[in-house]
Amino acid sequence: MNVAAPERTLVNGAEAAGVSVLERGLHYGDGLFETLGCVAGRPRFLSLHLQRLARGCARLKLPAPDLAVIGRELAALAAGADRSVLKLIVTRGPAEARGYAPSFTEQPTRITLRYAWPQPVEEPQRARVRIGAIALAENPLLAGIKHLNRLEQVLARAEWSDPAIAEALLFSRSGTLVSGTMSNVFLVHGDTLMTPQLGLCGVEGVMRQVVLQVAAASMIRTEERVLGRVDLAAAEEIFLTNALMGIRSVGQLEGRTLGPAPVTRRLQTALAPLLAAGDLGPVPAGAA
Amino acid sequence: MNVAAPERTLVNGAEAAGVSVLERGLHYGDGLFETLGCVAGRPRFLSLHLQRLARGCARLKLPAPDLAVIGRELAALAAGADRSVLKLIVTRGPAEARGYAPSFTEQPTRITLRYAWPQPVEEPQRARVRIGAIALAENPLLAGIKHLNRLEQVLARAEWSDPAIAEALLFSRSGTLVSGTMSNVFLVHGDTLMTPQLGLCGVEGVMRQVVLQVAAASMIRTEERVLGRVDLAAAEEIFLTNALMGIRSVGQLEGRTLGPAPVTRRLQTALAPLLAAGDLGPVPAGAA
Repeated sequence: MNVAAPERTLVNGAEAAGVSVLERGLHYGDGLFETLGCVAGRPRFLSLHLQRLARGCARLKLPAPDLAVIGRELAALAAGADRSVLKLIVTRGPAEARGYAPSFTEQPTRITLRYAWPQPVEEPQRARVRIGAIALAENPLLAGIKHLNRLEQVLARAEWSDPAIAEALLFSRSGTLVSGTMSNVFLVHGDTLMTPQLGLCGVEGVMRQVVLQVAAASMIRTEERVLGRVDLAAAEEIFLTNALMGIRSVGQLEGRTLGPAPVTRRLQTALAPLLAAGDLGPVPAGAA
Repeated sequence: MNVAAPERTLVNGAEAAGVSVLERGLHYGDGLFETLGCVAGRPRFLSLHLQRLARGCARLKLPAPDLAVIGRELAALAAGADRSVLKLIVTRGPAEARGYAPSFTEQPTRITLRYAWPQPVEEPQRARVRIGAIALAENPLLAGIKHLNRLEQVLARAEWSDPAIAEALLFSRSGTLVSGTMSNVFLVHGDTLMTPQLGLCGVEGVMRQVVLQVAAASMIRTEERVLGRVDLAAAEEIFLTNALMGIRSVGQLEGRTLGPAPVTRRLQTALAPLLAAGDLGPVPAGAA
């Protein structure tokens, strides 16, 4: 269930409801975003989100963001509610000239939105998942980062309207498994936890990174590798991750019902305290 | 030379400088745009631009736009200046919920910007052109239409800053010639005019379409086909097209200097009256 309107909206740190019609974020999707789950009044894994934002800015040749300022703003917004969702958008800013060429003197725009927590706090049912029809385009320059060019995700999400279906798994043009529309995907094969390499498309989710760390700490072997339809079909367990849901077990994939998921359960148990505590991770200097 | 600020900005028909922070055009690039050259106070090839917009809306599952309203607005804006550039953006509108899924009840946003004509009216020098390093991602669902996911073009245009270089030619991930960053490309081989098929990536430019028609009317054989590096190297003439420049002959491609361009010249001559007259093309019902 989505919640319609944000509770708070800030533009460059001030309450505001609008941005310039010249926004390069609007004209070209020239920017990045982060979605953070907040519990106990704190944004979870704040430092990991900020690090990914900084990587994305470097990739798009945006000015290095002031992570201390952004971190303080996110923390302050999160403090206003027990649970909430923060969405941060950072763009190159209003265009200084017509056309694609950045002037590299633009003033970036920072948009921060706080939404009510959308999901019931209790653990959801195992997810029913479909296979998306869209094949994701591949470009290593845009892979991994959370940029604003998201038409593929919009079109993938528009493929179905049945609320009983939680997510669609997407493959790339070259036939490799990539992710869900709004989540990363993990497969359990025997004693190994596998997740797609994301060098050509997809987003390197913060929760994906946390789960890989939790698995390693739990002595579960992990592999980031190229995965295909055969690997998906052979998986004994499948689960999805994102910043809000943490780990969500897949119970049904198209016609197939998946069996018990002991590895998924074990990882959920190991992850739970981090999710509940609003763990910040290591905080960049000045960001606390 | 770009001109910094638009002379007029309309949002849904009213003077306005801003759009909602909830714009799906901003969050996801969930929309389309058109750039129109206007001369003698009229937008050139208005009906072709409106037709492409309508095709794009259908592809993105946006509501069918009211072409009569949009056409009247563009014509009225163009009438305020002898020469100008209009940029029209149509988005799905402000998000009604968090997340990628459209509600399909959004109210689309129409943004119309008028800029001063950026180029000297006299004919420019033949263009110096480079080969871009970026390889364009391929997705038939997004190919051809002029959507707002333009990070590849931004990154391609950011590869060089030398103002003597007018454009970069771009290849796809699978190694086929696609277009420039902001133009379509044509090659002359013997008695044939060739331009890349755009079924997997690239934008089907309005001027590309006009030039194909002008060539056919001039009894020049035309082919839309898959073209590679070999075809580019073998081309006797190369030219670029877009809504503002019309046809621009390429004089230098990387180290290579191109010779006389009689076919290009012939097409420029045939096109000139259409460009100068502000030809509207066939106008959709009610749009005049």
